[in-house]
Amino acid sequence: MTEFRSVVAETGQPHGELLKADGLADVAEACAKADAAFDTYRATDRETRAAFLERIAEAILGVGDALIEAAITESGLPRARLEGERGRTVGQLRMFADVVRKGQWQQLRIDPALPDRQPLPRPDLRLRMIPVGPVAVFGASNFPLAFSTAGGDTASALAAGCPVVVKGHPAHPVTGALVAGAISKAVAACGLPEGVFQHLAGPSNDLGASLVQDPRIMAVGFTGSRSGGLALARLAQSRAAPIPVYAEMSSINPVLLLPEALRARGEALGGAFVGSLTMGAGQFCTNPGLILAVEGEGLEAFIAAATGAVTGASPQTMLTTGIRDAYARGVATLSGCPGVEMLAAGEQGDATHGGAVLFQTTAEAFLANKAMGHEVFGASSIIVRCKDEAELARILSGLEGQLTATLHMDEADEAMASRLLPLLERKVGRILANGWPTGVEVCHAMVHGGPFPATSDPRTTSVGSLAIDRFLRPVSYQNIAQEVLPEELRDAALADGAPRLIDGKLTLGSGPIAGAVEV
Amino acid sequence: MTEFRSVVAETGQPHGELLKADGLADVAEACAKADAAFDTYRATDRETRAAFLERIAEAILGVGDALIEAAITESGLPRARLEGERGRTVGQLRMFADVVRKGQWQQLRIDPALPDRQPLPRPDLRLRMIPVGPVAVFGASNFPLAFSTAGGDTASALAAGCPVVVKGHPAHPVTGALVAGAISKAVAACGLPEGVFQHLAGPSNDLGASLVQDPRIMAVGFTGSRSGGLALARLAQSRAAPIPVYAEMSSINPVLLLPEALRARGEALGGAFVGSLTMGAGQFCTNPGLILAVEGEGLEAFIAAATGAVTGASPQTMLTTGIRDAYARGVATLSGCPGVEMLAAGEQGDATHGGAVLFQTTAEAFLANKAMGHEVFGASSIIVRCKDEAELARILSGLEGQLTATLHMDEADEAMASRLLPLLERKVGRILANGWPTGVEVCHAMVHGGPFPATSDPRTTSVGSLAIDRFLRPVSYQNIAQEVLPEELRDAALADGAPRLIDGKLTLGSGPIAGAVEV
Repeated sequence: MTEFRSVVAETGQPHGELLKADGLADVAEACAKADAAFDTYRATDRETRAAFLERIAEAILGVGDALIEAAITESGLPRARLEGERGRTVGQLRMFADVVRKGQWQQLRIDPALPDRQPLPRPDLRLRMIPVGPVAVFGASNFPLAFSTAGGDTASALAAGCPVVVKGHPAHPVTGALVAGAISKAVAACGLPEGVFQHLAGPSNDLGASLVQDPRIMAVGFTGSRSGGLALARLAQSRAAPIPVYAEMSSINPVLLLPEALRARGEALGGAFVGSLTMGAGQFCTNPGLILAVEGEGLEAFIAAATGAVTGASPQTMLTTGIRDAYARGVATLSGCPGVEMLAAGEQGDATHGGAVLFQTTAEAFLANKAMGHEVFGASSIIVRCKDEAELARILSGLEGQLTATLHMDEADEAMASRLLPLLERKVGRILANGWPTGVEVCHAMVHGGPFPATSDPRTTSVGSLAIDRFLRPVSYQNIAQEVLPEELRDAALADGAPRLIDGKLTLGSGPIAGAVEV
Repeated sequence: MTEFRSVVAETGQPHGELLKADGLADVAEACAKADAAFDTYRATDRETRAAFLERIAEAILGVGDALIEAAITESGLPRARLEGERGRTVGQLRMFADVVRKGQWQQLRIDPALPDRQPLPRPDLRLRMIPVGPVAVFGASNFPLAFSTAGGDTASALAAGCPVVVKGHPAHPVTGALVAGAISKAVAACGLPEGVFQHLAGPSNDLGASLVQDPRIMAVGFTGSRSGGLALARLAQSRAAPIPVYAEMSSINPVLLLPEALRARGEALGGAFVGSLTMGAGQFCTNPGLILAVEGEGLEAFIAAATGAVTGASPQTMLTTGIRDAYARGVATLSGCPGVEMLAAGEQGDATHGGAVLFQTTAEAFLANKAMGHEVFGASSIIVRCKDEAELARILSGLEGQLTATLHMDEADEAMASRLLPLLERKVGRILANGWPTGVEVCHAMVHGGPFPATSDPRTTSVGSLAIDRFLRPVSYQNIAQEVLPEELRDAALADGAPRLIDGKLTLGSGPIAGAVEV
């Protein structure tokens, strides 16, 4: 297949001109160029790299409304959402520029020589993080801007000093090409080698497979389905030299309605829940797909409000007909599970639309059937009625890893929340109270990650500034002459403002080494 | 097999009483106890956990000379080396106690709420690292103390808050049991649950395999052979929920003799090289198994000195007869490689001893035969004669990942060293100058790690304080009430001395949140 078409999400029909589909030779060429650009790019100083990230942000804004129009057409998501997503995309590039400038990501460490130590002298040892090498990024279907071509994976990999090869999502090729063009413009404007950023497009899975298998690719960022993520992880593991795959895959995001909150505002919670459930046709990794509550006052009011809201919800355009079909299959599977009752279903729409669906079941039935714990990507959720806290804890214990867990709670629920917290920490990457999981703030304390299968690597996050750590590895320099040392590890750089751990003591690096160290 | 015997390394003969070999039921029981102990152990405050690590150090010293005697018998390593190794073992436990107290490992981050932000308010977000869960540690044959029962993996996992289940190396069961007894004594003295530390012993590989496959084990630390490490990594990847394996496996540690240094002191370098090569019968992960030099003045003097030293070297007891046999096979393979010349061989000794061997070859021959780049565990090394710097760089480019690279260099070699540095950084975890790779300092700036196959995960180190990061994962808390938050994330803890990233700004945490933040 050498050509393909963009598809209008709303109609499922191809539109626009024929697009070139990249082939395996293009993958190899892109990887060679990325590898060739690596040493030049990683040698850029913090200011140059930060300015480059800011330049990308400007260039994306410079595309103007054409970008939003393309994304609306290709994703079916509403304008306000996509404008917000563009703001987030630009904002996270600027956040990483700030992170790069501050330099904490380099994790500089200096253990000065101790020539008189007995029985043996200690050599001078210095450590910094270096970028791992060229990174492959897979665009996500559900965030055509913030998790795609210039999304969080790309921004954090570029911030780390890694050239990036994006495999654009075939559901939004025009959007992807516009963003890729903006990034390449910034690359050129900053005088960087072309290989710092490249974009591959096409509908074939072989493209991504060969990208992950290319020996020059050193890490992979992916957001998508469990099957897709696991397939890439298997390929990466079977390489002669395996590489990490950061795949964000599957989560049903349990929401716990604690008794006092439920009693106080069951009805309001029911309405707000459906607002979160149906946002973006439920096509969020953090969509609230599981509600856990102990039988008691307020639960019927919650259910009544949620049922009403779901029944009245309009069908929404889904990202692709494939996603819509998978959603319909997931809903059918849940409907057929023993002990599951469909509480409400909104209008389902045609072959490109999906409607909200709400189920309920008992804890006993849920525990008996693993299928109920699987993600249904779209606006489907299931309420599990628990007899007591112990049963609710059993449900949590049996869950697979999740991106988020949400607690709706009042002050009188704090004791119960404290009892559940250790269990939640073992299961999820983010625990939130009295909100909904679908908002993911881009900041320093965000974790968008979690135990398998929420992600393939729970030691990290794909959103927020900590995401840069995924693309770094430590190198230690022992007794290396000042002139040969990387600049940031030289004595002359001690006052450059970046934090340093000197002889185990954290300093903000603003003095000569003798003054900063206690030995 | 339910019983086994300790073996005297010097003679290859079993000695002492029959020892109980643990079985699969013991593995399951240990994992259950570790899992049950996890929440209690991870909830210990920094001071309690630090004091526990120091207590382990004291308890190990309390075993007294019986420990050294057992290690000498079982490993064949000399007393001075094992006394030094005990000092290192105790020292690294104390270093981790200091690290735990300082609290940087928690990576605390606070992004305060911005209720007035437009278009949407920002919630309060706080992040900390939590331990991943019970960790399996595999004792190494070549460091019966510092990389085994209470070695770096155990110390860093316990420091992180993870219960540890050690699979003791069958080559030193008595040594392992003595250390395990000391740790368990410290566990009891500190009032911690028994499951915080457990020790499994036995000669069967099934023991380790079932340990890695147990769903309650959340990470694995291993130092040993490439085949062993890869087997464990495969098992870990094929679990229903895969887990990280930190395997330190295979390295030949290239030593580069730069022209000016070689000219100035070829002979002295040749003698010192053989000192590093033969230390501990060459049974170091960082043994210098590859010498790279450009043809020129000083190289013949280096070779003559090294040849003389190798020829005169006495055979040494090897750790096990299996390791001795593998060494002999590795030497035979190198001898049979086309273009390889054996320069010198010391006396090889009997079935429990190994002697030093030195080979030389050309860059052309080396590049033509991958087998020459494989580790031969023991005192074997190969000198590769390069025509020029370009050929030397080609050799480096073709190497697999390594733990270390060494530069012998003078001031006049600095330009060449600077040219080679980017290439070395991509290949190794530690670059050192004018020393030998076999000394591995336990400190903050050490990296004992490197690209595959040096390790299975180049994002980390197994020696030094950074090793704690292997056993941690981030959790984010959004809008969680102060009383429910983990203590170190509460406002009341801001002055506890641990560093915090507050709204992206690194602080040393000594004031109220309003004072520390610019918003």
